[in-house]
Amino acid sequence: MRATVMFGAGDVRIENVADARIIEATDAVVIVSRACICGSDLWPYKTMEQSDTGRRMGHEAIGVVAAVGANVRTIETGDVVIMPFAYSDGSCVFCHDGLLTSSIHGGFFGTGVMDGAQAEALRVPLADGTLFALPVGKDDALMPSLLTLSDVMGTGHHAAVAAKVAPGKTAAVVGDGAVGLCGVIAARRLDAGRIIILGRHPDRIALAKEFGATDVVSQRGDEAVERVRELTGGFGAHSVLECVGLEGSMNTAIAIARPGGAVGRVGVPQDETMPASRPAFYNNVTVSGGPAPVRAYIEELLPDIVEGRIEPGRVFDRVVPLDKVPDGYRAMNERETIKVMVKN
Amino acid sequence: MRATVMFGAGDVRIENVADARIIEATDAVVIVSRACICGSDLWPYKTMEQSDTGRRMGHEAIGVVAAVGANVRTIETGDVVIMPFAYSDGSCVFCHDGLLTSSIHGGFFGTGVMDGAQAEALRVPLADGTLFALPVGKDDALMPSLLTLSDVMGTGHHAAVAAKVAPGKTAAVVGDGAVGLCGVIAARRLDAGRIIILGRHPDRIALAKEFGATDVVSQRGDEAVERVRELTGGFGAHSVLECVGLEGSMNTAIAIARPGGAVGRVGVPQDETMPASRPAFYNNVTVSGGPAPVRAYIEELLPDIVEGRIEPGRVFDRVVPLDKVPDGYRAMNERETIKVMVKN
Repeated sequence: MRATVMFGAGDVRIENVADARIIEATDAVVIVSRACICGSDLWPYKTMEQSDTGRRMGHEAIGVVAAVGANVRTIETGDVVIMPFAYSDGSCVFCHDGLLTSSIHGGFFGTGVMDGAQAEALRVPLADGTLFALPVGKDDALMPSLLTLSDVMGTGHHAAVAAKVAPGKTAAVVGDGAVGLCGVIAARRLDAGRIIILGRHPDRIALAKEFGATDVVSQRGDEAVERVRELTGGFGAHSVLECVGLEGSMNTAIAIARPGGAVGRVGVPQDETMPASRPAFYNNVTVSGGPAPVRAYIEELLPDIVEGRIEPGRVFDRVVPLDKVPDGYRAMNERETIKVMVKN
Repeated sequence: MRATVMFGAGDVRIENVADARIIEATDAVVIVSRACICGSDLWPYKTMEQSDTGRRMGHEAIGVVAAVGANVRTIETGDVVIMPFAYSDGSCVFCHDGLLTSSIHGGFFGTGVMDGAQAEALRVPLADGTLFALPVGKDDALMPSLLTLSDVMGTGHHAAVAAKVAPGKTAAVVGDGAVGLCGVIAARRLDAGRIIILGRHPDRIALAKEFGATDVVSQRGDEAVERVRELTGGFGAHSVLECVGLEGSMNTAIAIARPGGAVGRVGVPQDETMPASRPAFYNNVTVSGGPAPVRAYIEELLPDIVEGRIEPGRVFDRVVPLDKVPDGYRAMNERETIKVMVKN
């Protein structure tokens, strides 16, 4: 079968690899219908050291179950499933607490250890705890939005929850990538009174407004902080959704949080240390967030998609077949597109 | 009158200064009965650059009101009052939210701008919003414990609240200074099921146990992390109270937090950046806390002191007159004592 393998920075290839197959009795094999290229895939795309063996890529998918292991109980062959970016046993103490990304036997797809979803198929471990069987057919027009439940919509929601978005309060979203845009949807869904998006790409900002952003701050750094303060009576936002992961964006996120406010961060941090520790401290700003337990959020978010109240699938502005995934990376890296869907 | 002035690292003197007096109509003048030397006073004691004018020191006091300005409404001459380490207007949006340390017209005592409490008397701005009139006489035996409501007991409580201490859950306290010890009291008061104190001074550890600590970890760094994990089934503590403020202690605090847990930090951070940003992120550990709004906590904590359920005043293991304050700094800095009370 064919699968996406990254061999180094800027070096993404479609390779022939061994067919996905059941190894453990708790596995499923999923034929991928749709996958994505993620903003987080761009970090290794920019920085990965050259490797002879390479790394299988992709961690978001919808597909059809082709086979299940002997101990799989709730997932059946033929099920149309969402595959979240993390796999989880579904039975440990952290899964019970809803923190599936810390599942004791869990892990992450497309990180070099496990198969990737930018492929014809992949092996999914711990199928019962990981996959979510959809109540819809695989050609449903809702598929793009449902696909976002594998990562970006759940991640935007996690940022909003971590940032304690509450009815009538002000939320600010740092970053206008797919996760930031889903953060706008999430903040709107949680009835934020005002939603400020920080970003400067006209196409993304236009979509953010359609998703519910009430104010746009296109400045950066200190000027952005100044502008958010002006918009918020000098105080800052109650909730800040950090959807980038860079030192500068985190600095901005903390600086625009109101005293006593919260930053929910979902941008994968690119630095060992967090900036602005003292401002966060002196303003009693809470910093929370991390990898989103998206599997745990599907039940809450699914009805809003099925009933048409939210359309996160609109973040996909390019669809490519598997063979064109390398060009999809290039296009996302050069910001030609917001987010690329891979359709098999 | 006499007051404590720090002129540089290790250089604390008792000086004759202008008498405290009413300047604004919202001021009070408080004759200090008891003040404290704080762990946070030791940071400038270690690092302050030499200064000709010096800095008036001290931010915790109980005293008697000697005069009030024309616009003071709720505080009267003769009142025995707690003076929290921050002054606050009591009327702004942040005061209404209980975050008095971010009061719009507020600030901090003993930081160079305002008078200090290690003195015969001091001017207290915004008296109505700042001072708490006690229902007891000034010679009451409860005074040491009531004095801790000006800072360390309220600060320990803030750490516990920020760390989301909850009934039956495991709390770990990093630091065995007066704030850490009050953190143990606070965790016990909030019904933590298990309280692990990280520290290595026998006198402090003994007191921590009397206050409710169930386990002691005397190792440091990686060994301490290992030991806390052993004690918690490999997972870490639900709540971590960071009561030091150094890079190493913050690193430990994050490392011993359970995935999905919370670190409540009240140790004044000595670095611009926070360590362990990635571990905190990947484990969805919340980092919260900051200067404690101790004035807002007095009503909640006072009955427990008055009715004898908690005795935070036991953290004072040395009492000195004002003239001996310089030696009190030395003794605290050399860890001869946990916390020094200044009694006029």
